[in-house]
Order: sequence, then C-alpha cells, then structure tokens
Amino acid sequence: MAMPGRLYGLGVGPGDPELLTLKALRLLREVPVIAYPAPEQGESFARSIVADWIRADQREIAICFPMRPGPPPVAIYDAAAAGLAAELDQGRDVALLCQGDPLFYGSSINIFSRLAAGYQIKIVPGVSSLTACAAAAAFPLVSRAESLVVIPATLDEEHIAASLAGADVAVIIKLGRHVSKVRRVLDQVGLLQKAVYVAHATLLTECVTPLAGVVPDKVPYFSMALIRRSSAS
Amino acid sequence: MAMPGRLYGLGVGPGDPELLTLKALRLLREVPVIAYPAPEQGESFARSIVADWIRADQREIAICFPMRPGPPPVAIYDAAAAGLAAELDQGRDVALLCQGDPLFYGSSINIFSRLAAGYQIKIVPGVSSLTACAAAAAFPLVSRAESLVVIPATLDEEHIAASLAGADVAVIIKLGRHVSKVRRVLDQVGLLQKAVYVAHATLLTECVTPLAGVVPDKVPYFSMALIRRSSAS
Repeated sequence: MAMPGRLYGLGVGPGDPELLTLKALRLLREVPVIAYPAPEQGESFARSIVADWIRADQREIAICFPMRPGPPPVAIYDAAAAGLAAELDQGRDVALLCQGDPLFYGSSINIFSRLAAGYQIKIVPGVSSLTACAAAAAFPLVSRAESLVVIPATLDEEHIAASLAGADVAVIIKLGRHVSKVRRVLDQVGLLQKAVYVAHATLLTECVTPLAGVVPDKVPYFSMALIRRSSAS
Repeated sequence: MAMPGRLYGLGVGPGDPELLTLKALRLLREVPVIAYPAPEQGESFARSIVADWIRADQREIAICFPMRPGPPPVAIYDAAAAGLAAELDQGRDVALLCQGDPLFYGSSINIFSRLAAGYQIKIVPGVSSLTACAAAAAFPLVSRAESLVVIPATLDEEHIAASLAGADVAVIIKLGRHVSKVRRVLDQVGLLQKAVYVAHATLLTECVTPLAGVVPDKVPYFSMALIRRSSAS
C-alpha cells in the first residue's frame, strides 16, 4: 500500500484572484487532486478564484452542499471526508480549496476534523474576508489597545446585543437575510449610524455603503457590517 | 507640478515570504519607492519578508520606531507621513510594507490617517497573524455561529476578564511581557488549561505549545494565546 497522501487546506482569499498567496499557488499546481465546496447547481466560488491555474490533468472533486439555511447534514461531511480519504489512501496529495481563510468560518473545518486522526493535514492561511472588507472600506479595523469582536448575524438579537457591549470594534458577518434584525439591534444600542456595510469585497460587485441605507432584500450572504464605537485612535 | 503618486498599503503576511499575495508582489515590483517600519537598530521585519524581491533601483525609506513600551510619539508619524508625502508629491507611487494585514493592529494606520485627505491610498489586505497562528496550531478558529473576540494583552486584568466573558473563542495578542498577567486572568476564569500559545507563526522559530507551560521571560511580542471555551462544533 502506498504512503498516504497529504491534505492541504488552501486559503484562496476573498475573491480577487490576485489575493492568492504564492504558497497556495505553488501547492495548487503541485497536487494531482483538487477539491472544493460547490452548490448543487452552479459554479464553486472557491474554484472560480483559482480557475485560471487549474490544469486538465488534475482530478477535481466538487463537494456539494445543499443551499438551504442551517447547518448541512452530517452525512455531507462524512461523505466528503470519505471521498478525500480514498484519494489520500492512494498516495495522492489533495488540495482542499477554502475561500478566504480555511479556519475563519470555513465549512472545511468539519472535513479537517474528520481526517485529522488518520492523515497529515497542512493548513495554508489565506486573506480573510475580515481584513478584505476593512481594506475595501478603508476602515482601520483595530489598532493599539483596541479589542475586536466578530459576531455571526445568525445569532439571536439578545446574543448580538450582548456581544456588541464590550468591544471597541465589532464586525457582524454573514448578514444576508438577517440584515433587518442586525439593523434593529444596532439601532437599539445607538450604533446603526456608525455601521459600514461591505459586500463582495475585492470582487467586481464590491459594495461599500452605510448600513442604514441598504435595501434588505438585496443583501448577500457574503457581506458584513463594520462598527467602531469611538473614532479611531 | 506632477500628478501626485499613489500610496499602497501592502500587507506582506505574517513572516513566511511565500505567504505574500500575487497582488502585493506585483505592486511591490512596480513602485519606485518602498517604505517600511524599522527598529532604530537592526532589520525591518516587514522588509525582511520581501527582501528577495526588492531591486537596487527602488528607493527605500525606513520609518524608524523607538523600541520602547507604549505608543510612539506623534512626531514619528508626522515625520513619516511628511516623508512619504514628499515622494507622492513628486508623482512617485509608494508601497508602504505592513507585516500581516495593514489594518489589523498595523502601526501604519497612523500614517494612512495622516495622508488620507490629500492622496489616493489603496490598501492591499494580507494574511493576518490571527489566521496564521490558527493554521500553525491547527486550531479551528471559528465556525458556524461562534463568536470571536480579539484582546490585546496590554489591557488591564479587569478589562481582559470582561472581554473574555462573552465570546465562544478568544484570542489574546501581543503577549510579550504581559504573559504572566494574561495567565493569571485565564486561571481565574478557568480557561488557562484551554489556552494554546503560538509564537512567530510561519517563521523558522515558530512555537506552538500549551500556554500554561510557557517560560514567561522567553515570550516575544509576536505571540498570542488561542482559547476555545467549548469543544469545536
């Protein structure tokens, strides 16, 4: 039996293909197998970022996630892990493409955890949506002794309000269909007028505008609100 | 008078030269002037990351920061901004190198803010120390509905303890000479045994170990503690 292959979790950045790192590019070109999350229909976002670099002789594995709210069924991750394990068992190295950074709200975390005991895994960090959105908005994210909290918009109002309380800077991610709730909470704590909305950072569809003026049903999942309590130091 | 040059804030990543993005590399090679923070004696860390790419025909500007605790004097930033403005006024584009990501605890934030009104500034996000440390430790930073708080170790005990209270995952950065204080706080709230210490992520001197066992006077400034309240989802 061959020596098992190595699994690389490659952060491919927030969307602009130029925000790929030299390391992710090198490994992407070296591996015989490339895997990525994909919707049931349509293109994989992670794959689209590096599409120009993928060769016809590289095997591709699309890991299909159902596009409905809530966590995907455990069976999806089990099957995906088994599929990658089959490649690794043949001695083939696999690059699992992760949009943004692999360990910053990446769905692949659930695949790494299933394979960690049996295989060598190497995570290559990428530019996260967090700093890409700050750059797009020219928003000085945090400096000096400031604290930062990152809050998923999927949490309930009480939890979001509580999380906002302590930090100097707050970032509320994955706005999507939760944007009206998030605005309500921010309004209640007097922070709505300070919130900057960023969607699709680094893509052609990038949008930076005050959160207060956003049309709720146009807000994509890949968007966030940046909020600074006081002026930057 | 020439059209003013453009200022690029280039994130050059956490230390491994391969974690430079293609975009930062392209701009680094295009500009006639390269600026970077530097200690009064010794090498600039940001410059060292990209040293192999700098050409002899590119003008270099070292912005010297005194190596003592506390914020540098305002005069340092004023002088640095004036120095860069003089280049920009001559129509020369300037790349200001920022270790990690420019807007994530970057000292250059204070230079951008001084030049924002008069010049075109473009920030190129980079791989931050936050996700680089998570990758080094194979620590699933945040997933799904988890919240994250980033806390500078320079804060006082009360402030650190309060900031730890709400989030699922906490990261305490810039440990350095504050590590004993941080351990004391974590011990008091029952989280010390869960804290993973990471120093110099992605460099040859990278170190990942339980925070509880670290020798306090060996802890560098570029280190952090990663703490997850419960097991990863």
